[in-house]
Amino acid sequence: MRATLSAPTVVRTIAELRARLDEYRKQAPAGKVGLVPTMGYLHEGHASLIRRSASENGFTVLSVFVNPLQFGPTEDLDRYPRDEERDRAVAAEAGADLIFMPSVAEMYPKRPLTTISLSGVTERLCGASRPGHFDGVAIVVTKLFNLVQPNRAYFGLKDAQQVAVIQSLVEDLNLPVEIVPCPIVREASGLALSSRNVYLSPEEKEQALVLSRTLMQVPEWVQSGIAAAELSRRIRDAISRQPLADIEYVEVVDYPSLTAIEENKELAATSPVLVALAVRFGKTRLIDNILLPQA
Amino acid sequence: MRATLSAPTVVRTIAELRARLDEYRKQAPAGKVGLVPTMGYLHEGHASLIRRSASENGFTVLSVFVNPLQFGPTEDLDRYPRDEERDRAVAAEAGADLIFMPSVAEMYPKRPLTTISLSGVTERLCGASRPGHFDGVAIVVTKLFNLVQPNRAYFGLKDAQQVAVIQSLVEDLNLPVEIVPCPIVREASGLALSSRNVYLSPEEKEQALVLSRTLMQVPEWVQSGIAAAELSRRIRDAISRQPLADIEYVEVVDYPSLTAIEENKELAATSPVLVALAVRFGKTRLIDNILLPQA
Repeated sequence: MRATLSAPTVVRTIAELRARLDEYRKQAPAGKVGLVPTMGYLHEGHASLIRRSASENGFTVLSVFVNPLQFGPTEDLDRYPRDEERDRAVAAEAGADLIFMPSVAEMYPKRPLTTISLSGVTERLCGASRPGHFDGVAIVVTKLFNLVQPNRAYFGLKDAQQVAVIQSLVEDLNLPVEIVPCPIVREASGLALSSRNVYLSPEEKEQALVLSRTLMQVPEWVQSGIAAAELSRRIRDAISRQPLADIEYVEVVDYPSLTAIEENKELAATSPVLVALAVRFGKTRLIDNILLPQA
Repeated sequence: MRATLSAPTVVRTIAELRARLDEYRKQAPAGKVGLVPTMGYLHEGHASLIRRSASENGFTVLSVFVNPLQFGPTEDLDRYPRDEERDRAVAAEAGADLIFMPSVAEMYPKRPLTTISLSGVTERLCGASRPGHFDGVAIVVTKLFNLVQPNRAYFGLKDAQQVAVIQSLVEDLNLPVEIVPCPIVREASGLALSSRNVYLSPEEKEQALVLSRTLMQVPEWVQSGIAAAELSRRIRDAISRQPLADIEYVEVVDYPSLTAIEENKELAATSPVLVALAVRFGKTRLIDNILLPQA
């Protein structure tokens, strides 16, 4: 928390963004810039990223951009929740210095000829059920990195596959930025914070608690020597007991390669494993995960 | 030409490259960095790029890297000519400050998961006959831009399609670099300089003069109101008279979109048109072009 809350400047054009950053860099040549890329409708998860960036860098840029290229044709682009006023308040409270809120035309003055795609790391989990999603993520993140040229960029581990994809992208393209993955933030009930939680009816929200409740048992099950396939089956069974739950995937994969783990192999408590799931409650698709071993 | 020829430092690792650039930037915070990306075996065409960069920037990086990802399986990767000593001499004479000569393992410690591909601009000309070539160009150029973070990068217009591809890439990804296209450098005979000219037998080299000789007539033909298809036919006819010439393509396209021009449309002397060709003499594939209107 900062002693004085000065509202961060909002810029909507690339030219203004670059001018502000140039100004900061001239004034503080050794200063570090942190970037928190978001699609807005900020919650406490985003606030935790901004706070972390503000504590580690001299200047924090929050970007708010609902990127059409990462939505499929049947997905919720048009109804994705937006609330600029709240976003500005959250950003101010958490310590952002600048908010970059470009229009779609500013980010994509024409349909790009360029596609960035990643193999391997995008083939399972959300990559399998949302074709093209990570191409959209890769291009917008590359653009934002090139626009802001941050020293560090902050991403929440709720989208663990997104973090793995971006880490591969940074490595493959030698992008001069440090990726800082940050822990999932949950409601007291256990529900992972998501801008999409606003879509849930009270009944759906109640039943969605099964996701975190089940994931919280995973460390204990792994301790007891469970195999990958059995772990996945046990999670599915627990979730299926909720009548409104419609499972899209439950996967147990190696991290960060996100490749399959042999079905009958006993999971060691020490090897990096991601247990990730996507489940629909009504029209709302929720994701959650646990990364082992836990920090 | 510089008064004093101090030999440029050669670095082979990314860490050394970044350290040298940091040093320069600390010492000259407002200094500009120019990058000349090459595959080595430098000739006067490359030297002209280095000289231009040295005249426009405080620090010029020459990269020498034969990028395996831009060669097809049946192409000349293994026999691509190399001569490090000569490259160092040319770089020194032309005014480079630093030569980055990484190994393949330094640039690609593992097979990248990331692919960068461009539609439209890569579909004709060399893109049609060298599948995957421009994906390889796009990834290596993006990596070099991210490693060097140059203010300007210099490319020869002999590879006019490469220039168009890189300009699209820079625009689509908001890469913070200015692309400076530079004119083709020719021997007194008219032959466009190319590292691959070294492969030509004396007879092949003699016959290859037809390429520049024919392209030099293009402005006059366009002045006289020729249509695209007729222009292409006339160039093919001229080249085919050389018994060793094996035409891969002769194309008349819009620039820089590199899209087709209506066959029967009379070419205006003012609209940007690229007349480009690839022709084999023996085992050697040569490219050449003319861009209209001429500067």
